[in-house]
Amino acid sequence: MDTGSVKKIITLTTDFGTKDPFVGTMKGVILSICPDAILIDITHQIEPYHILEAALTLKASHHFFPVGTVHLAVIDPGVGGPRRPILAETAKYCFVAPDNGVLSLVYQDKELKAVREITAREFFLTLEDSAGSPGDSAGSPDPAKKRVSSTFHGRDIFAPVAAWLARGEKPECFGPIIYDYNSLLLPEAQILSDTHLRGKIIYIDSFGNLMSNIDHPLFQSLQDKNKGRGCQISLGPKVIKGINRYYGEAREKEAGAIFNSWGYLEVYINQGNAHQQLGLGTGTAINIIFL
Amino acid sequence: MDTGSVKKIITLTTDFGTKDPFVGTMKGVILSICPDAILIDITHQIEPYHILEAALTLKASHHFFPVGTVHLAVIDPGVGGPRRPILAETAKYCFVAPDNGVLSLVYQDKELKAVREITAREFFLTLEDSAGSPGDSAGSPDPAKKRVSSTFHGRDIFAPVAAWLARGEKPECFGPIIYDYNSLLLPEAQILSDTHLRGKIIYIDSFGNLMSNIDHPLFQSLQDKNKGRGCQISLGPKVIKGINRYYGEAREKEAGAIFNSWGYLEVYINQGNAHQQLGLGTGTAINIIFL
Amino acid sequence: MDTGSVKKIITLTTDFGTKDPFVGTMKGVILSICPDAILIDITHQIEPYHILEAALTLKASHHFFPVGTVHLAVIDPGVGGPRRPILAETAKYCFVAPDNGVLSLVYQDKELKAVREITAREFFLTLEDSAGSPGDSAGSPDPAKKRVSSTFHGRDIFAPVAAWLARGEKPECFGPIIYDYNSLLLPEAQILSDTHLRGKIIYIDSFGNLMSNIDHPLFQSLQDKNKGRGCQISLGPKVIKGINRYYGEAREKEAGAIFNSWGYLEVYINQGNAHQQLGLGTGTAINIIFL
Repeated sequence: MDTGSVKKIITLTTDFGTKDPFVGTMKGVILSICPDAILIDITHQIEPYHILEAALTLKASHHFFPVGTVHLAVIDPGVGGPRRPILAETAKYCFVAPDNGVLSLVYQDKELKAVREITAREFFLTLEDSAGSPGDSAGSPDPAKKRVSSTFHGRDIFAPVAAWLARGEKPECFGPIIYDYNSLLLPEAQILSDTHLRGKIIYIDSFGNLMSNIDHPLFQSLQDKNKGRGCQISLGPKVIKGINRYYGEAREKEAGAIFNSWGYLEVYINQGNAHQQLGLGTGTAINIIFL
Repeated sequence: MDTGSVKKIITLTTDFGTKDPFVGTMKGVILSICPDAILIDITHQIEPYHILEAALTLKASHHFFPVGTVHLAVIDPGVGGPRRPILAETAKYCFVAPDNGVLSLVYQDKELKAVREITAREFFLTLEDSAGSPGDSAGSPDPAKKRVSSTFHGRDIFAPVAAWLARGEKPECFGPIIYDYNSLLLPEAQILSDTHLRGKIIYIDSFGNLMSNIDHPLFQSLQDKNKGRGCQISLGPKVIKGINRYYGEAREKEAGAIFNSWGYLEVYINQGNAHQQLGLGTGTAINIIFL
Repeated sequence: MDTGSVKKIITLTTDFGTKDPFVGTMKGVILSICPDAILIDITHQIEPYHILEAALTLKASHHFFPVGTVHLAVIDPGVGGPRRPILAETAKYCFVAPDNGVLSLVYQDKELKAVREITAREFFLTLEDSAGSPGDSAGSPDPAKKRVSSTFHGRDIFAPVAAWLARGEKPECFGPIIYDYNSLLLPEAQILSDTHLRGKIIYIDSFGNLMSNIDHPLFQSLQDKNKGRGCQISLGPKVIKGINRYYGEAREKEAGAIFNSWGYLEVYINQGNAHQQLGLGTGTAINIIFL
């Protein structure tokens, strides 16, 4: 990661919601360590404990940020247990997260440089800080302080590590490189024949659009074999003819299929909510057949 | 718009919700182009595709920001279709939005200077950027790059244009002045007689307060003709006597009427939720009669 | 409060929700007065008018921020009525809020220095500003301007006062010290015998964790008298054996008890939602018995 002299951005992705002061607390911790950090929320509404949703969210958004951005992801059902805190480094970014697969799609980045276990406890917030006033101890990490909470590593480990990274500490200061980090088994779309592609719905956005795991290159590879032929998309009982170029090509309140802004095929209802109106959710199979 | 040397604020108003990484992605794009931008969320919870709600939201909030602020509004059911991206400029602010009426109330600003169609594609984010790393190409816009997505102009057109404006590009660089921009037909309150004013509910806030389109000057004009007389407000089956000066003048859990912080008459329930408890919503007629 | 030369942080805690432009408007007002302020949302989803919830939220989060932070809390059912706006000052922070008990837990800070009624109307936003363009009048407060709205003191009083504080105005400029400020009667846990402690649930977080008012020092005092003995926690019909060190010590979907990141005993369901699954809420009694 190239660490320039400009201000550092830290993005936050969690399942903490925005009702409780958890996110605000993490930001207070970060600003106590790195007062210049620019804090950008990706989302705090990951479905609680839903690691795959967070992995997709990070994949879709992280690369739109300036080089040097630190991405913090805290979806952490195993907090306080044996799961390790990790720091992944690509050519352009750093990622700080628990080792539960939330960075699975980052590991596929061909510019991945290293994945480290975070072991340098001197960068952690301690219980003494938490109970008292961490604002005071912003000057330098104190290796003598040792105990952190076992319920909120977002506050006590991940936020401080992200802040020290943004302040300019090198990734190698935080712990050793590891190779046995955890990855999710990601559902992949399959080519069933020269005219048949099958995937499934893996994400539903807040407009109710049903996003599949069929990306454009895969679709293109089959389309190249079916030049001049149209295709039909089926999803549960719904059959859709062809793929639109923009949402408005479907009539109002009618369903259409489109490659979305993340590059995946999605089924939508123009100015409606496909998730609610079709009654379909994640896991639903989606088939493309060239006719 | 006076472009000073101070940091530029960009506000964001969308119907994207906060669950998906759409807003975070737009912010990444903006900071890649204009690292000094200060990003302020107005709301991302406009009811999906509800252009009037967004227009009212912008009207109520935009003028509280410092001169030079760029206001970005992306409620965009027609994304990717023929609707134009526009840039409106008043004496104090710039507005970047689709041409679907979301800026209708901005056009009523007597200090409106120009409305432009955004045609300068060199400021857009391209699919190559989106797929790759837009963070890299922050230096200068490249006119050779041409294709943008057809599903997320918030990311590919509106965010980058707002960022380049905040960086100091002049509005005239983005495209020609147009006069045929779209405006919503806004519901207006009517004076039915010297003692009778009729409006309707046009906005419900998150406290459940029912805001009408009756503003204070209109009310005052009628009150001046009815000196010494009281008035009665009726809304569905509910009849309210007189207009309060503060919420607490109604007893707890009782309904009252008041001119709210936006200058419009609203019906509320003290420490309750008028929308839920009266079972009334937008479109409901509201009558003021002087007795 | 030590006012350094660094940028000032203002945190915001309200019950305004994030759908309406109320919070964005307050931020516009603040940035018009103090363009360098760093604005951090604690939460805007305090249950409407729920002063105790806001008091707990502030207690849990405020001390993680750097010294000099201004904490703004607007839960204000009495807006426009006789309740006073106040400014509380501790050794490290300033707090701006209505005098309705929302700062009750701040008053318990042993470093509390002063509580003031905010009377200096020259720092308020006036109706002229609100109707017009407050952005213009950012230079200096004008004592001649006098009228504020009676429905949105968050915008017209609390935000501007926080901004002027962040800009460096001294607390003593805002009004006289008072001693008759309002405090909530806070529910306290009770020691019923040498083996029996009783509290109640006072907060539910967005994971559904049920937080009690039993803090660790109180528990410790009883545990010291019961060395070598285990304890049993009962909550409604639910009985839990012992206190866990981390969430994962309960099996998936099973209930456990733990001292949480705020230092209070809470009942949780591992990777579940105790509030929903146990059907218990705030006010429920919780008993700890040493066996």
